[in-house]
Amino acid sequence: MILIAERINGMFTDVKKAIAEKDKQVIGELAKKQTEAGATYLDVNVGTAAADQEGTMQWLVESIQETCTTPLCLDSQKPGVIAAGLKVINAKGGVILNSTPLNKKTDEEIMDKYIEMAEQAGPKASIIALTMDKNGVPQDIDTRVAIAAEIVQKAMEKGFDSRRLFIDTIVLPVKVPNAQVQPCNILAAMDQIKYLADPAPHMTVGLSNISQGATERSLINRVFLAMAASHGLDSAIVDVLDEKLMNVVATAEMLMNKQIYSDSFLKVYTSVKKP
Amino acid sequence: MILIAERINGMFTDVKKAIAEKDKQVIGELAKKQTEAGATYLDVNVGTAAADQEGTMQWLVESIQETCTTPLCLDSQKPGVIAAGLKVINAKGGVILNSTPLNKKTDEEIMDKYIEMAEQAGPKASIIALTMDKNGVPQDIDTRVAIAAEIVQKAMEKGFDSRRLFIDTIVLPVKVPNAQVQPCNILAAMDQIKYLADPAPHMTVGLSNISQGATERSLINRVFLAMAASHGLDSAIVDVLDEKLMNVVATAEMLMNKQIYSDSFLKVYTSVKKP
Repeated sequence: MILIAERINGMFTDVKKAIAEKDKQVIGELAKKQTEAGATYLDVNVGTAAADQEGTMQWLVESIQETCTTPLCLDSQKPGVIAAGLKVINAKGGVILNSTPLNKKTDEEIMDKYIEMAEQAGPKASIIALTMDKNGVPQDIDTRVAIAAEIVQKAMEKGFDSRRLFIDTIVLPVKVPNAQVQPCNILAAMDQIKYLADPAPHMTVGLSNISQGATERSLINRVFLAMAASHGLDSAIVDVLDEKLMNVVATAEMLMNKQIYSDSFLKVYTSVKKP
Repeated sequence: MILIAERINGMFTDVKKAIAEKDKQVIGELAKKQTEAGATYLDVNVGTAAADQEGTMQWLVESIQETCTTPLCLDSQKPGVIAAGLKVINAKGGVILNSTPLNKKTDEEIMDKYIEMAEQAGPKASIIALTMDKNGVPQDIDTRVAIAAEIVQKAMEKGFDSRRLFIDTIVLPVKVPNAQVQPCNILAAMDQIKYLADPAPHMTVGLSNISQGATERSLINRVFLAMAASHGLDSAIVDVLDEKLMNVVATAEMLMNKQIYSDSFLKVYTSVKKP
């Protein structure tokens, strides 16, 4: 599973403080710890506090790259902030541009910009596209799948390989009652999205969102991740420092026949660098 | 989820000893503990050690019924042993006859006998039918589904309500390499079996079998149960005394929209008697 580590995000107090104080060490340590825990990519999100988002993105990228070479996942809804990060990044090992809806309220083709930036960043650059459009996050399964189909079609038209596309089916907090966007409906959408192209696009979710504001956050994250892995989810933005979650990832990979069982399957999984 | 508690089984040392010594207290305590932990049914299996299997089944049923009124799941491949249990049982709250293959090697229609016994035991009596036939456990998804379809058809022909039918898709140990009967293939079979009748037959598995001989048994059981619950599994023969497993059951039910989220969803689930 392609694991995008979520912790370098200005929404977390320690990162926010490090950004304010220009404390490279805090960022570097988070980068190192998450890499050691098994991150395939490190998410980089400036949060909302920084006045100069573009400069902050560059400072974060540079701070991380002084410590490790783990590929980054530049996380912003603003193309300008992503572009700023790309100016200073070493994207040889890959980079993900996270994320774009299909289009904005004004019908502005925002996804086109992300594809263009990815093409410029090199052959290993991918994008995360959200199953939402000018009407926001769809309330039913069919519209989610229809938007995913449009995303895949747009990528194909642009000659952008479906393997460079991560479709984020958007999980919403279970704590917020919403009859239509239940987790089970997200799984039903995944069942269809995985067949939209061959080779299939990746599917990802911002896992921790599902347990936002809930009790038993790690348990809810773990159970949903196990379910989603069995419906084709092959990537997730997660807290890789949650050891119990990482054990579930390793077990799910083994049960889905992506890793062979051995008595030390947990250790084998976390010690092997993933694609 | 309909949880069939697995611990009153002569294969476990304490139960074997209790049977040999006719120690009702050990059996009664297991019945009580499993009921309190959330068992919908208590499995009753004499194991292989007892010379008089029919008499032992009756003694177990009577010992349990002196302690609690939890419905029982009489577990034997021998119709005579099930019949002996039925003679002394109080099946008002329901009973499951566990289990029958579609037929035996000689083409003997063994499933017919289990349906007949269930009909005689009353309207709340169900059977567990295994997706195996005279050729044994099938090695591929399609044959598993085909056997399940024959099971459903046979039940329909006999006028036996599909809601009284539990189809056991038979999970095999992950430790035993077997390319065709991987857990992910069992899930793929479940995806089809749930649509074989309307109302759908129940689906169940002997969960602990998947981790037989493996390390991290509870973890493997938990992750597979979460996955299977998202593919329509609505029953399982499990260790209800495994608290972590029970928490996963409660979380899976909540994520699959069968329980509403509340901050105390774990406690709510285990404290409410299930159907």
